[in-house]
Amino acid sequence: MSQDKHVYFFGDGKADGKAEMKKLLGGKGANLAEMTNLGIPVPPGFTITTKVCRYYYDHDKTYPEDLDEQIKENIAKVEEVMGMKFGDPEDPLLFSVRSGAAMSMPGMMETILNVGLNDVTVEGLAKKTGNPRFAYDSYRRLIQMFSDVAMGVDIEFFEDALAEMKKDKGVELDTDLDADDLKKLIEKYKEIYKREMGEEFPQDPMDQLLMARDAVFGSRDSERAIIYRRINGISDDEGSTAVNVQTMVFGNMGDDSGTGVAFTRNPATGENKFFADYLFNAQGEDVVAGIRTPIHVDELQKAMPEVYNQLREIEQKLEKHYKDMQDLEFTVQQGKLWLLQTRRGKRTAMADVRIAVEMVKEGMIDKETAVSRVPAEKIEQLLHPMVNTKSKAEVIGEGLPAGPGAAVGKAVFTAETAMEMAKLGEKVILVRNFTSPEDVGGMHASQGILTATGGMTSHAAIVGRDMGKCCVVGCSDITVDESGKKFTAGDIVVKEGDVLSLDGHVGKVMLGEVELIEPTMSGDFGELMEWVDEIRTLGVRTNTDTPAGAKRARSFGAEGIGLCRTEHMFFEEDRITTMREMIVANNEEDRRKALEKLLPMQRQDFIEIFEAMEGLPVIIRTLDPPLHEFLPHSEEEVKELAEEVGIDLAKLKDKIESLHEANPMLGHRGCRLGIAYPEITEMQARAIIEAAVEVAKKGKEVIPEIMIPLVGQARELELQKEICDRVAKEVLEEAGVELEYMVGTMIELPRAALTADEIAEFAEFFSFGTNDLTQTTFGMSRDDAEGKFLQDYIEGGILEVNPFMTVDEKGVGELIRIAVEKGRSTTNDLEVGICGEHGGDPKTVDFCHRVGLNYVSCSPFRVPVARLAAAHAKLREEGKMDE
Amino acid sequence: MSQDKHVYFFGDGKADGKAEMKKLLGGKGANLAEMTNLGIPVPPGFTITTKVCRYYYDHDKTYPEDLDEQIKENIAKVEEVMGMKFGDPEDPLLFSVRSGAAMSMPGMMETILNVGLNDVTVEGLAKKTGNPRFAYDSYRRLIQMFSDVAMGVDIEFFEDALAEMKKDKGVELDTDLDADDLKKLIEKYKEIYKREMGEEFPQDPMDQLLMARDAVFGSRDSERAIIYRRINGISDDEGSTAVNVQTMVFGNMGDDSGTGVAFTRNPATGENKFFADYLFNAQGEDVVAGIRTPIHVDELQKAMPEVYNQLREIEQKLEKHYKDMQDLEFTVQQGKLWLLQTRRGKRTAMADVRIAVEMVKEGMIDKETAVSRVPAEKIEQLLHPMVNTKSKAEVIGEGLPAGPGAAVGKAVFTAETAMEMAKLGEKVILVRNFTSPEDVGGMHASQGILTATGGMTSHAAIVGRDMGKCCVVGCSDITVDESGKKFTAGDIVVKEGDVLSLDGHVGKVMLGEVELIEPTMSGDFGELMEWVDEIRTLGVRTNTDTPAGAKRARSFGAEGIGLCRTEHMFFEEDRITTMREMIVANNEEDRRKALEKLLPMQRQDFIEIFEAMEGLPVIIRTLDPPLHEFLPHSEEEVKELAEEVGIDLAKLKDKIESLHEANPMLGHRGCRLGIAYPEITEMQARAIIEAAVEVAKKGKEVIPEIMIPLVGQARELELQKEICDRVAKEVLEEAGVELEYMVGTMIELPRAALTADEIAEFAEFFSFGTNDLTQTTFGMSRDDAEGKFLQDYIEGGILEVNPFMTVDEKGVGELIRIAVEKGRSTTNDLEVGICGEHGGDPKTVDFCHRVGLNYVSCSPFRVPVARLAAAHAKLREEGKMDE
Repeated sequence: MSQDKHVYFFGDGKADGKAEMKKLLGGKGANLAEMTNLGIPVPPGFTITTKVCRYYYDHDKTYPEDLDEQIKENIAKVEEVMGMKFGDPEDPLLFSVRSGAAMSMPGMMETILNVGLNDVTVEGLAKKTGNPRFAYDSYRRLIQMFSDVAMGVDIEFFEDALAEMKKDKGVELDTDLDADDLKKLIEKYKEIYKREMGEEFPQDPMDQLLMARDAVFGSRDSERAIIYRRINGISDDEGSTAVNVQTMVFGNMGDDSGTGVAFTRNPATGENKFFADYLFNAQGEDVVAGIRTPIHVDELQKAMPEVYNQLREIEQKLEKHYKDMQDLEFTVQQGKLWLLQTRRGKRTAMADVRIAVEMVKEGMIDKETAVSRVPAEKIEQLLHPMVNTKSKAEVIGEGLPAGPGAAVGKAVFTAETAMEMAKLGEKVILVRNFTSPEDVGGMHASQGILTATGGMTSHAAIVGRDMGKCCVVGCSDITVDESGKKFTAGDIVVKEGDVLSLDGHVGKVMLGEVELIEPTMSGDFGELMEWVDEIRTLGVRTNTDTPAGAKRARSFGAEGIGLCRTEHMFFEEDRITTMREMIVANNEEDRRKALEKLLPMQRQDFIEIFEAMEGLPVIIRTLDPPLHEFLPHSEEEVKELAEEVGIDLAKLKDKIESLHEANPMLGHRGCRLGIAYPEITEMQARAIIEAAVEVAKKGKEVIPEIMIPLVGQARELELQKEICDRVAKEVLEEAGVELEYMVGTMIELPRAALTADEIAEFAEFFSFGTNDLTQTTFGMSRDDAEGKFLQDYIEGGILEVNPFMTVDEKGVGELIRIAVEKGRSTTNDLEVGICGEHGGDPKTVDFCHRVGLNYVSCSPFRVPVARLAAAHAKLREEGKMDE
Repeated sequence: MSQDKHVYFFGDGKADGKAEMKKLLGGKGANLAEMTNLGIPVPPGFTITTKVCRYYYDHDKTYPEDLDEQIKENIAKVEEVMGMKFGDPEDPLLFSVRSGAAMSMPGMMETILNVGLNDVTVEGLAKKTGNPRFAYDSYRRLIQMFSDVAMGVDIEFFEDALAEMKKDKGVELDTDLDADDLKKLIEKYKEIYKREMGEEFPQDPMDQLLMARDAVFGSRDSERAIIYRRINGISDDEGSTAVNVQTMVFGNMGDDSGTGVAFTRNPATGENKFFADYLFNAQGEDVVAGIRTPIHVDELQKAMPEVYNQLREIEQKLEKHYKDMQDLEFTVQQGKLWLLQTRRGKRTAMADVRIAVEMVKEGMIDKETAVSRVPAEKIEQLLHPMVNTKSKAEVIGEGLPAGPGAAVGKAVFTAETAMEMAKLGEKVILVRNFTSPEDVGGMHASQGILTATGGMTSHAAIVGRDMGKCCVVGCSDITVDESGKKFTAGDIVVKEGDVLSLDGHVGKVMLGEVELIEPTMSGDFGELMEWVDEIRTLGVRTNTDTPAGAKRARSFGAEGIGLCRTEHMFFEEDRITTMREMIVANNEEDRRKALEKLLPMQRQDFIEIFEAMEGLPVIIRTLDPPLHEFLPHSEEEVKELAEEVGIDLAKLKDKIESLHEANPMLGHRGCRLGIAYPEITEMQARAIIEAAVEVAKKGKEVIPEIMIPLVGQARELELQKEICDRVAKEVLEEAGVELEYMVGTMIELPRAALTADEIAEFAEFFSFGTNDLTQTTFGMSRDDAEGKFLQDYIEGGILEVNPFMTVDEKGVGELIRIAVEKGRSTTNDLEVGICGEHGGDPKTVDFCHRVGLNYVSCSPFRVPVARLAAAHAKLREEGKMDE
């Protein structure tokens, strides 16, 4: 028989648990214990462990035998501390019952308040507090929450009953209802419960408590919790929740009561300034749900200076203790402050950076800790465009700037529509009165979020910020008609599909599309990134085909170009015809003629890119896509081409037909083109080396690296390298210039990885093309999978991550490991990088660090993300990441 | 300075070399040495080693310093044996100079005869033999061959000169020209030489000899030699040739002279009966080239019984010595027999089998040797259809039955046309006056070969037999006009593109297409295959979707079905509509309705297959191809389908459009279908198990194995296996039958191979789908590569073999190795096989044996090939293959 400790007590300055027991007690439980131990006023209670939750699921939803006994023992302890009894008809002790997993999952908190109230104890509470209205209001709230959370009764039944009551009475606010009204409402609520559940609302306080416990454990596998975990990559086990049973304190006992949420620093900007949302005479759920818009904390200071000062003392103590910005929940009951929760405060990327940097300056943390605390994925937000303030957009509303950046998209009014339209490639903005956990998927799919109600700590704000979404909340200027799919702002009506713009930095809502401008980075950011560069050992290059991209990436800290595609250049208006002329040429001579025209264009492109990347390596890839991608498809265009090039229409059509492929991804592309038409490689090698010579002649350092794509056999590379070396020799001798250059290859086919030792005989560098490598390793075409069955695979848990976003370590990663090992067995110091889109994904960057690559390469905007992720990888290796 | 022995002497019953020195002396040189040592009359001479050939290519076409000295020493030895002097103006010793590599390459032999003749020695020869005509004829032959072989002068110049001379004299045959004519012809030949080469024909015998040596070594890298080696998978090094310099003996010294080629047994049937082609008064080249049709050996017996008897004695001695059927070249010079060469005789597959089996019975070799000697690739010939003798085809000619089987195809007249049309998928028959090494590529591309001249040992016959091509030679009934692209047979004119049929067993040529019938196998074959099965440890199954195929494969020795595709069944007329109904269904319900109709059809298919394979395992693969493959494409068909299924045309078109994929090979197919539509897998599993139950109820043993295709993640297999197991449980419980079945998976994606340990958690067997695995590992679509760039890759040496025919060991093979190892690390005795088309390829079978697979599976006709290859693999492992 199990003699495990299932229940941990906290109260009266002492707790069984502590902060380090997060995994066992959940974040909330561990912090309640820690706060208690710190001498902070926390309502006493106890935590049922996450281990019990796992037991519950592993044992067919049953509990350890001795659990109930331990619960009863702990209730007794609380009763002793509080000097009250659970179920006491005169002065009943009431409990809140809350979930709390080891990992914070915003909006996933299940809460039932006022457990212990029944037809009898409610009268005792009324008498004891001398406030029958409060007592009945608490009871009707219990019935509603219990029905909703524990029994799954539709909450609308209760809301409708409440609304009807208000209508009958001709009042607008809940607070306008008096004790008698609420008493009647309780009867109605109990009827609803009986109707829906087929039995009476439970009157035994202990029954209520145990059923609430069941509900909390049961919530781990609710659909929305499962979706949330999937989106955030949290395992079921990590999602196991503890149950926190805690003495009720009341923020709704009148105007000397209230409830609030506070941040020790500003979660939006990071400014070191206390920040709180407070509601007088309200329970905590009212703040978090964002249904009522809270007042500014200054009003609390005015109204209750002692409480305010105590709160400030506590928040400073907590921040110092945890050495990080804290997010607190507190309640004031008839003038007495109670702390209900403290946890690491979620924040914007901007706040992440500012807080980390300022805490180093304040001597609170060291640089490595600062770097470790800024999530790599989020800092891309700092680089995103902002609204051009000179934009003459019509501002139709203002709300709270809850999430960073700016967003433009079509208005939609339900999460479902947001997801559907996003699937079709539309950019949307989700507009709601307020959001709830059911909306998480739709929020994820949207460019931005706009809510009419709620504060900076409402669901929309917390989740939006966490996702890095532009988010404006509490915009009372608008009236949302969700079912009518429209909102009004004054006399303006915005319907589904109308374009809106949001400015998440200032909280403005604008009609139509605004102009966006490039972001500039703060000094804090620059400072942090300097520390990042001191820590990381993995290089970061960028993928770009343009001088502008090269310049931007360089300003973001790119240390070279990892992939410059040469084909995009051919799609420009003035070049495509020449390119097509080359493709449809019937013999080498005609092909060479067209290539001669393309040569100076390519050379000029490369000159500009080399200049932008002066002193840094630039990898240029030879022609990669199947030739038919360049050809026209419509009858009209084909005719035009025939005329332009002076070729018989029927012959041209035959040629186009002959280039058609059943599986172009696996067809005549990559170096297979250069093998079939060596003159193409010749022209490109010439353009690269001639451009390098020209730039070198200006006294600028050029480091060209020519990359051959889609190599599967060593001999392919050998042949292509021969061409490059021959042409380079010619050009350099002719110019009388000495210049170092390299010839290397993409490793983007399984066979290339498996025969990397042979390929390395001819390669001066490797670069993993993880897009193609993923497609071939999985036998899955990205075009055909994404937006089709891939989503089902991820949602169905068949795939743990989208392998086109994060490198699949088991399969693709194994090939990368093999290729690095084999490649370096031939050439010990072989330069190896990655240039697939995965190069900017933090998890992939970590993998690349572990597997010993020299650098990752990613799009310009991902460069800072990759730099930070590279530093994290190094810190993780050294055990310095707190995860 | 090198002191190596470069030159090996043979003559007068003693030789420096022996048979075992084949690698050093080439096949011809080693055999000349061996024959000499056996006391057989061989004209004395010496061999310059293949090592010198390699030296020549490794050292910029120069020779070891002491080579010329060693040559001179050996000339002196020959002079001593023969009592004649090289270059003696009175009685000149003459040499033949011939190539001879370690591996026999038919038609690749470079030969220059009569080396040592010049303006002076020719007169000596004339006087000494008293036959000026012979002397001049020999000299003009030397000039022609030397010019052609050593100098690359176009042979037609000489032939034209000869033809002109005959025309001037009004004669038809070369032999009608007298000594004076030939003397004049020599002057013309020398003029041609001077005109083409810009210098006089070399008069110094030693110069002639050394230049001839250069020509032979140079021939290793002639274009045709390179092509031959590529087709036959011989490395450049293996192709290195020795130079054999041998005293000339003359078959053209009158009617008591002649030359012949003999086989110790019949090379077409294998019958133990001496077989020879002989030409009176001719040189050896006349026989091999097939320009003149030789007489039957009986005539030799009549004309020169002593010579004939001596020849018979020698052939028996040689066969006993070499313990294999020999191919001899001999010359009779004025009544004296000289053996010029002996080597292993090339033969048809039928002869291969018969000779091997009979030699075991004669006690000459053991069973393992017999099995080792029959080439696996060739025995498929024995299984190929023959002409139905009841066919009422018009026989338009008869020739020699030089190659096995029967062929139907369009007549073509050049090797180039044969290759071009074959590329377009046409079946062709190559018709020539005679073939030459330049035609090898075209012969390879043809179904059959027909020549107007030549004997059973002509180039066409030897090469055709070796390739296993149906081949009719020496068909004097036809007159071929190669440049006019037609031939005539009596008054019938057959033009390019007209359909011909050949019967290679009897040598008949027929106009139009004949009916072909299935082959039956000889008793020898059955006996040999019994020995094969005793030796091999690797299992052999078959790939078939039909009961007929299953029966045929079983008769060929298949031990089960390795791959039964279920989709082909759906293409049948009466099923395709139901299948389409299923595909275009908009919801699960409609899909299930259509599937219900398909269920009984599938069940019936499986019943018949299970019955045909009673007692043997049958692997059935669930639906694999992308659904759009089943849909109609033409406007007309789409309309019909809309009507049949009762669906709106526009909606149907949308549906078809939505199923379109950019890269269907990498799209929604394989188990991805079964994941999206579990009801399809459910129906198929039900059909399989219900069929098995029905067959089991008849008291027959059924061993069903359900195979899930295109698994990349273990979870896919887990989900599909759950369905199969659930359905199987239902069906078996309902039927009250106990039945063993397995669920396993194809390993056909790199990711599956790399994660085989995880996949093996849910797989009861693995089967390598090497077609898809090759496509994904190479990133190469077979459809898009074959007939397009793949051929260039193989011909250009970028790929050593066609990876779609022989498993690429380095890449695909490495994945197979990884998967076998990982899979068996999870399940020690995991059943692992291969069901890609590679399963019937002997090299792949050898690989599968080495890598430890349980079985290979291939098409029914390849089953015997795979069995034999599996035995060879075992013998090879034990060092018992003589290669």
